[in-house]
Amino acid sequence: MTRVRNGVALEHTENDAIAVETPIAMEFNGINHAVMLATPNDLEDFAWGFCLTEGIVRSADDIRDIEQEHTEQGIILHVQISPACMQFLKERRRQMAGRTACGLCGVETLDAVRRLPLVAPASTATLNNSVASAADNRYDLSHIPASLTLPQLLDGMAALRERQTLHLATGATHAAAWLPANSEVPAFIREDVGRHNALDKTIGALMRHDQHPDKGALLVSSRASFEMVQKTAMAGCPILAAVSAPTTAAVALARETGVTLLGFTRAQHATLYAHPHRFQLSNKGRTS
Amino acid sequence: MTRVRNGVALEHTENDAIAVETPIAMEFNGINHAVMLATPNDLEDFAWGFCLTEGIVRSADDIRDIEQEHTEQGIILHVQISPACMQFLKERRRQMAGRTACGLCGVETLDAVRRLPLVAPASTATLNNSVASAADNRYDLSHIPASLTLPQLLDGMAALRERQTLHLATGATHAAAWLPANSEVPAFIREDVGRHNALDKTIGALMRHDQHPDKGALLVSSRASFEMVQKTAMAGCPILAAVSAPTTAAVALARETGVTLLGFTRAQHATLYAHPHRFQLSNKGRTS
Repeated sequence: MTRVRNGVALEHTENDAIAVETPIAMEFNGINHAVMLATPNDLEDFAWGFCLTEGIVRSADDIRDIEQEHTEQGIILHVQISPACMQFLKERRRQMAGRTACGLCGVETLDAVRRLPLVAPASTATLNNSVASAADNRYDLSHIPASLTLPQLLDGMAALRERQTLHLATGATHAAAWLPANSEVPAFIREDVGRHNALDKTIGALMRHDQHPDKGALLVSSRASFEMVQKTAMAGCPILAAVSAPTTAAVALARETGVTLLGFTRAQHATLYAHPHRFQLSNKGRTS
Repeated sequence: MTRVRNGVALEHTENDAIAVETPIAMEFNGINHAVMLATPNDLEDFAWGFCLTEGIVRSADDIRDIEQEHTEQGIILHVQISPACMQFLKERRRQMAGRTACGLCGVETLDAVRRLPLVAPASTATLNNSVASAADNRYDLSHIPASLTLPQLLDGMAALRERQTLHLATGATHAAAWLPANSEVPAFIREDVGRHNALDKTIGALMRHDQHPDKGALLVSSRASFEMVQKTAMAGCPILAAVSAPTTAAVALARETGVTLLGFTRAQHATLYAHPHRFQLSNKGRTS
C-alpha cells in the first residue's frame, strides 16, 4: 500500500488491516442455492439468520445441521433443513424457474411484487408463502409491547459504536447487535462487509441461543433500507434502530408490519419513523 | 415522525426529507430480467450502466431504446437491445436455469466462480463470456496511462462531497461521479440509496454522453467492495477512488484487472491499494 498525506507526500506501508470479503456458497440438503460475498466470521450464525430471514425455515427446529467446507475459491456452508422446508424451497424454485428463464433475482416482475403482503424484491415468494402458511401472521408485530425504554436504546447504540472491533480496525464493516429486554448492553454484536449479512448473523445468533426476538431490539450501524426492515420483521423483532437514515420503502414496510423504526440513532438523538407508541414519550428530559 | 433529542425530549415533525426507494423492474426485449430497489432518478443512465456493467451489452450501439413505464407498484424500464446481445442473454439464462433450479443469484456454486478470470458472484457468467468473446481482453487495464494527477483526484473528491445534494437532504444516499482527464471538477454526479446503482448511473451517463472511460477516474462516496471494482473494470475505467475502505476481494480484483484503487480518499489523504504506478509519486508535498 502507498499512503498519501497532504496531497502528494507519500509513505509505503504494509500494515493496514483490510476487511476480508470472501465468496460464501450456501447449499441446502446438497443443492446449491446462492453465493454471497461476506466476511468469513460467525458463519454458523450467518447460515441460521439467512435461513430465517429468507423464509427458508420457520424456526430453529427446521435446521438440522450446518457444516463448513473451506475450499480454495471460498467457503461452502452445507445446511441440512427439514424435509418439509426442503419441499417448500423446491416448489418455490420451480415456480421461479417457470415464471421466467432468468436466474438473477427472486422477483422479475412488478406484478410479482404487488401480489404480496410485503413489497419484497429479494424474497417476495418466501414472504407470501410464509404468511399464507403461518396461522399467526407473524408479520403484524404491532401488538408486541416494548421491552425496553428509549434511554436504554440510545445508550445501547452508543455502546455498540465502541465495540465494533472489526470496523475500528478496517473501516470497512457494518455491525448489527441485539439489545435484550431491560438492558442497555448490546449482545450478539456481529460485523460484516455487508450490512444485510451482519443483521442475518445477529438474528442467527439469537436463534441459536434461544433468545425471544420479541423481547428486545435490533441495532444496526448502517442505514435502514427496505430489506433491513424486512429481515427484522421476518425475525419477529418489533424494534429496529439504525445509526443512519431510512428510505421511504423502509418506513412504509415498518408501518405495515408493526415495527418501530428509529433512524439517526446517535449521540442521544433519534428520529422515530414508525410506531412510536411503543415508547413512553415525554418532553421532560432524562429521568435517570 | 417523532424526534428525540437528549434522551427523551421530543418534538413532532413532518418535514424530514427521506430518500425514495422504489422497485425498478428491468426488462430486455420484452422479457423480465430483475427487480431492484433504487432511487427513481436518472433511470435512463441506470439502465445504460446496468447493461454495460452486468455484461448484457458491450457498447452503446447495442442499446436500441429505453422506455419508462410508471405503475402503481414501481417503475418498469423497457430496454431494447441488439438481437446479438439478446441471443447471448438468453443463452446465459438457459445455462443458469440448467445448472440449478434456483433463481436467487447468478452464481450458485464456488466452482462456477472459479472457472472465470474474475471471481464474480453476481455476474461471473457474463464476464467469462465477455472476456472470451472480446479480442482485446478489456479487463486488463494496466496499460492505460493516468489522465489526471493525484492532486486533481483529491480535489475532485473534496468537490464531490459538497455536491451530493440528495445526501445532504436525506443522509441516506451514496454518490458516484466522473472526474474527466486533466480536471478537478466532478461530472455526472449520480445519487442512489444503493452504491452499486449510483455507480451504474454514472457509468451509464458516461456511455450516453460518449465519454471515453479510459480518460478520467470514477469517484464513489462509499466503500470499495468487489462489485464496485468489477463495475469500474467492466466500464473500462482504470482508476477508482473511494471515500471509505476497500475489502480484500476488491484489492485483489483491482490488482488483477489493472485498476488503480484508492481508499480513504478524503481531506487530501488517500491510500493506494493497487497500481499506484499511474501517479507520479513524490514526497515533496504539493507543488501547486
